[in-house]
Parts: sequence; C-alpha cells; structure tokens
Amino acid sequence: MKIHPECYPCLLRQAYSTLKLITEDSTLQERVLKEIMRLLSIYEGEDPPPRVSRLVYGTIARETGVKDPYRDKKRECNRMALDLYPRLKEMVARSPDPLFTAVKVAIVGNIIDFGVGRSFQLESLETIERLALTIDHYEVFLEDYRRAQTVLYIGDNAGEVVFDRVLLEEFRGKEVYYAVRSGPIINDVTLEDAYETGIAGVARVLESGSWAPGTLLDEVNPSFKDLFWGADMVISKGQGNFETLDEASREVYFFLRAKCEVVARLLGVQVGDTLLIKKGRQTAVITPSGP
Amino acid sequence: MKIHPECYPCLLRQAYSTLKLITEDSTLQERVLKEIMRLLSIYEGEDPPPRVSRLVYGTIARETGVKDPYRDKKRECNRMALDLYPRLKEMVARSPDPLFTAVKVAIVGNIIDFGVGRSFQLESLETIERLALTIDHYEVFLEDYRRAQTVLYIGDNAGEVVFDRVLLEEFRGKEVYYAVRSGPIINDVTLEDAYETGIAGVARVLESGSWAPGTLLDEVNPSFKDLFWGADMVISKGQGNFETLDEASREVYFFLRAKCEVVARLLGVQVGDTLLIKKGRQTAVITPSGP
Repeated sequence: MKIHPECYPCLLRQAYSTLKLITEDSTLQERVLKEIMRLLSIYEGEDPPPRVSRLVYGTIARETGVKDPYRDKKRECNRMALDLYPRLKEMVARSPDPLFTAVKVAIVGNIIDFGVGRSFQLESLETIERLALTIDHYEVFLEDYRRAQTVLYIGDNAGEVVFDRVLLEEFRGKEVYYAVRSGPIINDVTLEDAYETGIAGVARVLESGSWAPGTLLDEVNPSFKDLFWGADMVISKGQGNFETLDEASREVYFFLRAKCEVVARLLGVQVGDTLLIKKGRQTAVITPSGP
Repeated sequence: MKIHPECYPCLLRQAYSTLKLITEDSTLQERVLKEIMRLLSIYEGEDPPPRVSRLVYGTIARETGVKDPYRDKKRECNRMALDLYPRLKEMVARSPDPLFTAVKVAIVGNIIDFGVGRSFQLESLETIERLALTIDHYEVFLEDYRRAQTVLYIGDNAGEVVFDRVLLEEFRGKEVYYAVRSGPIINDVTLEDAYETGIAGVARVLESGSWAPGTLLDEVNPSFKDLFWGADMVISKGQGNFETLDEASREVYFFLRAKCEVVARLLGVQVGDTLLIKKGRQTAVITPSGP
C-alpha cells in the first residue's frame, strides 16, 4: 500500500517518541525532527509507509549515533514473553483444537504492546481463547496448511516472536522458515531476538534482507526471495509486513491487528480489529524473479 | 513559552485534521502537509507555539484557498452553547456564591470541546459546581477583582464565548473589554462570534490585532496594547493565550485547562487539570509601550 497523508503526523509522533528514549536534550530532539521534516517534505515517492519509516528512523540513528534505541525494551519484551511461554503452551495443549488456539496465540502476540506496561499478562492471555477475528479466513488457511510442505513465516516484533514460536511448534512435519529484519528498527524482530527467544530451535531463521519495519520486496536477499516466491505458504505477521506485502502477486496469509485508521479503512474494519486474511494472487503481470 | 519539540508532531496532526475538513483530495492534503513540513524544517525561531501554529494554518489557507475552515463548526458551537445559556444562568442565580460559580462556568467553557460531539451537555454542566481547580488562586483573584475598575478579558474559542458571557454578566460596575482574534484561526473567537453570542451586549468587544490562536504581544493593535498594559485586571482564557502571555511583565489571571503534556509539565500539573492561576510581574526590564 502507498503512504497516506495521515501517515506523516504519525511518523513524526513516532520519531519524537523514539527521540525521547535516546535523549533529553530538546535542542537535539528539535534538530532531528526538523531534519526529518525536511526529508519528508522533499520525499516524492509512492512507497509503503515502512519505507518512509526507515527514512525517519535512519535519520534518527544518523543524527544521534544511536542505532538501536529499542534494544533494552526489546530484550525486556522477550523476557516477559518467555515468562508467559509455559502458560501459552499449556493453553494450547489442553485446547480441543491446538492448532487453531496456537494461531490465536500468534495473533494475540501482535495485539499485545509490550512497550505499554507490565500488567497486560493475565487479561491478555484470557482473551486468547475467545478472540474473535473480524476477518477470518482460518478455514481456507487450514486447507492450505495441510497441503503445504514449506512455510515461510515473516516475523514482526520482539516479544511477539515467543507467541510465534508457540504456533510454529504446532506445525508438525513442515519445513518452516522464520524471517526477521536485517537490522534493528523500532522494536522489530531481528536475529538477536530469534536467538534470545528460542524460535531458532523450531524454525530455520533467516534475515529478509530488508531493513525496514516491514518487508520491502525490492531489497530482500536472494534466500528470502527464493522462499517468498517458492514456499507453499507464506504467513505474514503484523501491520508493517501487511503494508509492504499486501500487493505482492502471490498468496499470503496476513495475521494482524489493524493498528491505525489508514490500514483499518483500507481493509474496511475498525482500528483494533484482529484479522486472519488470505490475500490472493492479485495480478499475473509482475513476474516473480525467484524460482 | 517557547515551542517544544513535542509541538511539531502535534502541529502536523492538527494540520491534517484541518485538511480533512477542507478536502478529501489526498494529493492536495499531502502537498500541503509537505509544504508545512518544509516551512517548519527551516523555521528557526524560539516563538510560542501559537505563532508557529499560525504558520501552519496560514499555509493551509494559502494552499487550499479556504480561509476559515472552521466557520460552520464555530457557528454550530455558538448555537449549542447558546442553547445551554439559560441553564448556566439559572445555575449561577441559585448558587450561594454566584461570582465563584460564574468563574467556574467560564473555566468549564474552556474544558468543553464543542468539536467532539453533541452529548456533552448534561454531564459537563453537572461538573461545574463540583469543579476542582488544581491550581486555585481564586481568593487573590477576588481581592483584585473587587478593586478593579477596568477589566480586559481575552477570549479563546467559539462556543466558549457564551460561558464567558455568563461570567461577564456577573461583573457589576466594571468597565469590561472582551478581546477576540483579528482573523479566523482554528475555532478561535472572532468578532463574528462575539456578535453571534451576545457578548457584545455585555462587554466592549475589540480585536486584539493578533491573528493567531493566542495573543502575540508584538503584533497587537494600539487599543489592545493600551488596555493590556493599562487595565486594572487582565483575564486570559485558554491555553493559547497562556502560551503567548505567560511571560508578559504584568499580572495576568489565566483561566485554563492544561490540554497537552508540554503545558502540563511547565505548570507541574496533569493534562486535563483545570487551573485559575495568577501570574505576577516577573520582570521590570521590559517597559510597557502602553500608558
């Protein structure tokens, strides 16, 4: 999807939140915000928001010298999510439909904002089994899943990766790949998070080649490209991956919560709705460059 | 007060909200937002937010040709507030302390956001008599009020002006001036609103000379300047006037709700707190140019 005018104020707000983490120096904060506004004002692309987001976060990294301002928060999220892991496993194990429950666990992992506080655990976990999906393509997901040999699962955030692990542990007899970002950006999942959370023991972890809070197909590395076009099934987690992959000309399952008005409007849902969407092969014109 | 880095994302969000009122053309919205970002990125002043805000709204007016996008909303706010007027008058009349109740009415006028919806009336009015002021300089206000012959009251928004009228109708035996903005900006009170709401029958209405969502003392007209420096008492409504007058070297009473983190932090209060603050003559260095 293309960036919407509404994204600019949002990007600037995110930039300020990140700058607050890095420095209390309001002169520096102001200088960086102005440099971001300058770049956005001359930006002429029609890119998905995560590409523009990278411009924003890249500017912050360059101007402040802090490359990974969310490192500590991410580590804490991973630890908090790992604390929940035994309860998530138990919930799946005693469920009459472990795979469906595990799918919901993975989607709830996208709902939880680990940055917000520590008091989320109990309430959020209780919602898992009664989670209602506003768009629910689980039945067709299940059919495709049964037939699939290779599955590419594209991760989203730190913390959330533990919830993904719970789902991937239910994927029996599949060849599963778990893709992460190729560099730190916001709280997105990277190799480091994959190793911290044990998902590397469940799936083959790879970097996508894209350093953005999403997956920019024109910059992914050859391994990822082969998997993306060649895997029997692709599962994409979160809004950033949706924003960058929603127009890809292959079938993709999107597990996400609509986190802003722009995406909610595009999908005809409300902000906060949880979704399991199969998007089809919309166009045959774009020829995959992979196998 | 000087603009804070946090103001930039907020200004851009406000700009987008205003653009949405004016046009559904996202290409135009984007073009104007980018022009605003360009101007903000080269802006080097240390001005109060309302001056920068004017840059934003001025750009919107220039680029879209729409000078007063809030005109209809303002008219509706005035009408809605006038509908409440009889109940406000009754509340003051049956109060054991009509002046204090009328002061609270005026402050509640600043709390109500008429833009938000139509269902605010009953709940908001019920809060008036039990309104707790986080900073409460009413006692010293009362002393000064009793001694004052001339009072300059600086209005804030449309709708709210009716609540101001209720207070000014309690000001017996004073020479009262009600200042409005010199041009339409956001939902701020202008001459048109003063006439629509009948406050012109209670106080002498004048334009401040400042066309900003606040009162920029370096651009006010001579009449306002004389009154500002010469009046026995100045009452300033709302956050925009606070942001532009808080460092003025004369005593000013500020009636406001802290509507954002930046102002709340400056005042040591929480967002949403309601305040009646006397600010003193902080400096004798700046010589008033008025009488």
